[in-house]
Amino acid sequence: MTRRGLLGLAGAGAAGIGLGVAGDRVVATAVGASVSDDSAQYPFYGNHQAGIVTPAQDRLHFAAFDMAAGATRADLIDLLRDWSVAAAALTAGRDVGEFGAVSGPYDAPPQDTGEAQGLPPAGLTITFGFGPSLFETADAVDRFGIAARRPADLTRLPHFPGDALEDAFSDGDLCIQACANDPQVAVHAIRNLSRIAFGRAVIRWSQLGFGRTSSTSTTQSTPRNLFGFKDGTANIKAEQPAVVNEHVWVPSGSDQSWLAGGSYLVARRIRMTIETWDRTIMREQETVFGRTKGEGAPLSGGTEFTEPDFDLTGGEGEPLIAAASHVRLAHPAQNAGAQLLRRGYNFVDGNDDLGRLEAGLFFISFQRAPKQFTTVQLNLAKHDSMNEYVRHVGSALFVVPAGARAGSYVGAPLFS
Amino acid sequence: MTRRGLLGLAGAGAAGIGLGVAGDRVVATAVGASVSDDSAQYPFYGNHQAGIVTPAQDRLHFAAFDMAAGATRADLIDLLRDWSVAAAALTAGRDVGEFGAVSGPYDAPPQDTGEAQGLPPAGLTITFGFGPSLFETADAVDRFGIAARRPADLTRLPHFPGDALEDAFSDGDLCIQACANDPQVAVHAIRNLSRIAFGRAVIRWSQLGFGRTSSTSTTQSTPRNLFGFKDGTANIKAEQPAVVNEHVWVPSGSDQSWLAGGSYLVARRIRMTIETWDRTIMREQETVFGRTKGEGAPLSGGTEFTEPDFDLTGGEGEPLIAAASHVRLAHPAQNAGAQLLRRGYNFVDGNDDLGRLEAGLFFISFQRAPKQFTTVQLNLAKHDSMNEYVRHVGSALFVVPAGARAGSYVGAPLFS
Repeated sequence: MTRRGLLGLAGAGAAGIGLGVAGDRVVATAVGASVSDDSAQYPFYGNHQAGIVTPAQDRLHFAAFDMAAGATRADLIDLLRDWSVAAAALTAGRDVGEFGAVSGPYDAPPQDTGEAQGLPPAGLTITFGFGPSLFETADAVDRFGIAARRPADLTRLPHFPGDALEDAFSDGDLCIQACANDPQVAVHAIRNLSRIAFGRAVIRWSQLGFGRTSSTSTTQSTPRNLFGFKDGTANIKAEQPAVVNEHVWVPSGSDQSWLAGGSYLVARRIRMTIETWDRTIMREQETVFGRTKGEGAPLSGGTEFTEPDFDLTGGEGEPLIAAASHVRLAHPAQNAGAQLLRRGYNFVDGNDDLGRLEAGLFFISFQRAPKQFTTVQLNLAKHDSMNEYVRHVGSALFVVPAGARAGSYVGAPLFS
Repeated sequence: MTRRGLLGLAGAGAAGIGLGVAGDRVVATAVGASVSDDSAQYPFYGNHQAGIVTPAQDRLHFAAFDMAAGATRADLIDLLRDWSVAAAALTAGRDVGEFGAVSGPYDAPPQDTGEAQGLPPAGLTITFGFGPSLFETADAVDRFGIAARRPADLTRLPHFPGDALEDAFSDGDLCIQACANDPQVAVHAIRNLSRIAFGRAVIRWSQLGFGRTSSTSTTQSTPRNLFGFKDGTANIKAEQPAVVNEHVWVPSGSDQSWLAGGSYLVARRIRMTIETWDRTIMREQETVFGRTKGEGAPLSGGTEFTEPDFDLTGGEGEPLIAAASHVRLAHPAQNAGAQLLRRGYNFVDGNDDLGRLEAGLFFISFQRAPKQFTTVQLNLAKHDSMNEYVRHVGSALFVVPAGARAGSYVGAPLFS
């Protein structure tokens, strides 16, 4: 029974009684009914982890964790077991723990923190990843006994030209991506998973995102980033299984057998200098993107989903889509065919001392190998005219293992 | 025509063409259809400002501004005029400016930043307020010529026991509260209003809230704060016009005639030490609130909307609702009848260096006079057992003038 089912019943009961007691009140029984896509529910267990090809939800809470000093292999396995059980409950719209948030012994803390009581699953997905540092030896000690099982591809991302990375937004032993259509549901998930980790792992950094910037399904419209442009038009879509198989999932036969069915998650905190952007003329904005601002059509013509024609030139012989435009430099044709499944979010985190909004794009991409990302990003970092308006301040790479089987836990093949 | 109307047409056109070009794609034309209550639309002009008794929307972006050094009375009036025109457009789901985000001259910056293109009004309200400092003389100069029109009640809030206020979250010459059911719409409003203010006023501090913590209408269910409890059960509701008139709107006949129909807005950034709270046993949690965690019923019995009985005692003669409980200390009966219209939001702003979520309640209340708030808050600050788990780190008071008439601007009576 989901929280919603429980509350629906409770609400109905309360309405009857409430109306008897205070006739001027109407108790709303449609708990959470105003949440977008609140009926969506995705299973936690499966061949692949959810939250990758799942249609991108509206809101994000992402957290990177470090294992506690002294934590052992057994602690790590126990944590992944506990997290998996909790994630299965949360994504089904249930509380964590045997007794949950509002029942159970009165002389113990509630097992669930309770702020999602009455809210439906809201399309929640919880996706776990392992960072390079989890596999590293510390003072020649193989902390978790997995150093030999480290994938060759799982190293820190290289330094790209222009990177202005801060530790406060970079790296981590573990990560959790919680996406939902209701931010309170995503926040509740990270909070309770972080509480479950107490004594074993601690949050290193975290990020809330309020608006998705990519569609990952042809059923979704293309959202806009904080530059005001459509973002993710040419993204990999769930409805392209061959493309997903080729570019997103690690095949069997990689250097580590436990990786099969997994993926690599790149996270980049990209600060936008939006005040500068907002003073840029329309022609320059469109030139930077290589697309029109309204429709999102390539400057070579057509509509949003028309394939860009990079060879078309204008009256002066100059390319209609500029050489340094984002759409050209990010295109697979310019990157040895590399494609990414992007799943980023807009963020605003208050303002700086000069009153400028601390805003940007929390970029997330999934790919079968980090090289897909580094190929594209190196191209962009060197040449993209958008670089004048963005600064990469956070960076992290995680390997996302395959989905957990019911009764097992996420990442189990790594330890078997 | 709203942005949605425009995009609906554009989308339909694109779908037809897109299907011709790439048959495996379906262009989603239901732009923004997944946003909760996206059809809600509230007029900007009216007797009172919207965003006070308006059913509390799901998301918040709040910003406090300071006037630029050297800004004149004429600058302030022009700013309020420009803000009013823009607010009327934004709340109707339109772009700001004559040409908006995606059309207009190519050799000028777009007038609207564009990230709300395709999104409906989403119930957006924009509420403007004036802080005490706006009326203050600086170096004996009456900057805006309004020192003599300062309401006697418009002074900084007093220091309450336990206050740990930070300048970074306190005070301001002006404020804007933007509430909407889509955070991108609220963020777009603050961003564009802040852009319009360029050279005249600059953001001093700002706050995003992701989940409302109060209902202001009997049509809404009661949401939960990050302690996991229902919040705002006994709030003033729009459906109680006599109560609203008595407690929320400044009557004519106050010390400043321009105030009639306005209200006072109190903002308090309340940090919750949720990790400590989460280790507190259920009995203590309910004792602190004076209500049950599940149903939200008073500990004296009944259901959520049963009036608390503060005289009922248990077997040992102790009151069922503890003397230091929040529900007792905040109740009008303990505060000379003072009532507030609360309109606060949950927030999470990342985490601190110890990995603890930087989370809490961004408290907003509206009242006819600040004394209603100070009476209740003094009582709470002295006695509330919840103080062990909260810390007030930001504080601001603003007077919210009456609504603007079409053709005029918000606050016009102050300058006439």
